[in-house]
Amino acid sequence: MLPTIEDVKAAAKRIEGVAVRTPLLRNDTLDAATGAKVFVKAECLQRGGAFKIRGATNAIAALAPEVRARGVIAFSSGNHAIAVATASKRFGINATIVMPADAPKIKLETTRSLGAEVVTYDRVNESREAIGAKLSEGRGGLSIIRPFDDPFIIAGQGTAGLEIAQEISPDMVFVPASGGGLATGTALALPNARIIAVEPEGHDDIARTFAAGSIQRNPPGIRSICDGLLTEQMGELPYAIARERFERVVVVSDAAVRRAMAFAFRHLKIVLEPSGAASLAALREGGVDAQGQTVALIASGGNVDAETLIEALNAV
Amino acid sequence: MLPTIEDVKAAAKRIEGVAVRTPLLRNDTLDAATGAKVFVKAECLQRGGAFKIRGATNAIAALAPEVRARGVIAFSSGNHAIAVATASKRFGINATIVMPADAPKIKLETTRSLGAEVVTYDRVNESREAIGAKLSEGRGGLSIIRPFDDPFIIAGQGTAGLEIAQEISPDMVFVPASGGGLATGTALALPNARIIAVEPEGHDDIARTFAAGSIQRNPPGIRSICDGLLTEQMGELPYAIARERFERVVVVSDAAVRRAMAFAFRHLKIVLEPSGAASLAALREGGVDAQGQTVALIASGGNVDAETLIEALNAV
Repeated sequence: MLPTIEDVKAAAKRIEGVAVRTPLLRNDTLDAATGAKVFVKAECLQRGGAFKIRGATNAIAALAPEVRARGVIAFSSGNHAIAVATASKRFGINATIVMPADAPKIKLETTRSLGAEVVTYDRVNESREAIGAKLSEGRGGLSIIRPFDDPFIIAGQGTAGLEIAQEISPDMVFVPASGGGLATGTALALPNARIIAVEPEGHDDIARTFAAGSIQRNPPGIRSICDGLLTEQMGELPYAIARERFERVVVVSDAAVRRAMAFAFRHLKIVLEPSGAASLAALREGGVDAQGQTVALIASGGNVDAETLIEALNAV
Repeated sequence: MLPTIEDVKAAAKRIEGVAVRTPLLRNDTLDAATGAKVFVKAECLQRGGAFKIRGATNAIAALAPEVRARGVIAFSSGNHAIAVATASKRFGINATIVMPADAPKIKLETTRSLGAEVVTYDRVNESREAIGAKLSEGRGGLSIIRPFDDPFIIAGQGTAGLEIAQEISPDMVFVPASGGGLATGTALALPNARIIAVEPEGHDDIARTFAAGSIQRNPPGIRSICDGLLTEQMGELPYAIARERFERVVVVSDAAVRRAMAFAFRHLKIVLEPSGAASLAALREGGVDAQGQTVALIASGGNVDAETLIEALNAV
């Protein structure tokens, strides 16, 4: 069953008091550069530094209390891990998080500091799903909190879009997509907006999925600095929504993402991780004509190591 | 005549549509570290990257139209310059800005890019006031927009405090002070809050002013990275308010300010310039017991060069 805008509204009630309402930032320089009226939904200012707390809280809140009490497990490159750990702490339950060993240090440390048990794996040679399933069984039935292919996750992430809808009526929304939870949840919340999905060069499975008309995968291996957008393939539920709603898929290079991070530092005064800057990179350099449009841009997260930000600042 | 809370309310109406309402950010790590419930008023997200647009807009809006049409002049180390240039552009009038030659590049460039004419001077050997007065005369009666010693400026800056009052009732407010416009305007807007003024080590004229019971000056020369807090002395109007309202003056070191900038990067996901991080430094390391208190902290600006931010990130 696909989630609907009603599920997004229900999610908004469930996450109240855990997720915060993030601001829509305005910037003269960005408006001048694009010819559009741009509103930046600053999810880097969200609790945990990324939008992921929205979906994780909604999914955990929706579990039956006796099931929830047994604990949860999640596999994530970082922000979903932090989100599940944060929500679990809030509900007073145990969280086991399976993370790639090469995830950004800041994300590994933050997850551990929230009281979750972190199990690392080799992103290239091991399957996180297999490890997750085995751990879940061995620990007496942990509930798996999926990162995106779940109606509660999609509806939860969509609350970012719902907050946008409560303040403005955007013509277009630029939103990063990988598993597809945020982009499709946002699409549900904003039924009249044109959805521009953004993905990193080298992991352009969604562009290929739309060209082929069926879900395509990324080969193993890391070919982008956008560590939050390296999913093997889009989720099936997200794809079912995306095929109806994504107007376009824009692919952004690492160089454009670094320039967007530097722009965010210099003009917006927010810290964006590479994945969080992808939508800004797409608006600035993706060749989409936004002239005269009201544009919402989801800057999805800000959990970046100092070294990575410094690299971006030095690259400009 | 000293401004009152009514003047702050009038300013809030005048600046509507020019200044934006900035968010009050919450952060679990900051709460845990201080034992307080901390709300960060993120003025780095203000138009122009700092609170200064509030006062400048209020002062220019309050000029008689025929006086305003002749243009304005301001002297500033940076953020006031950007603010006056921005507000002048908005009103379609000429702005002449006298800036120290060693002001941060980003502030000089931004001011010029807003269409203002920038005249630089030597901060150590020349008097900006004398240069300003001479220029003003030569150009047919420009109105001087003072950076702080003006009731309209104080009332304008106080709108930051008014916005805080509309959302929370803080027990304490940490706010940077140099000329004193922001700190005393905030004090007017929050009559029941304890005001903790913050200034940089080496430029602790306000601490000495309170000890002496009369306005003290800083010797010429730069001894702090807080380039926005290097005023020679506090304004007379601000002092008249401050003597009644400042509960305490906290002096922060460059090292503490750099750590606060890094903390803001890592946890708050906002970019703070040194002066903008001073209040955070004072809360984190200033020895004020905030346990159990509702604290508002004004993070006053984010106009920092990449090199200065990188230095702060590398120092931790």
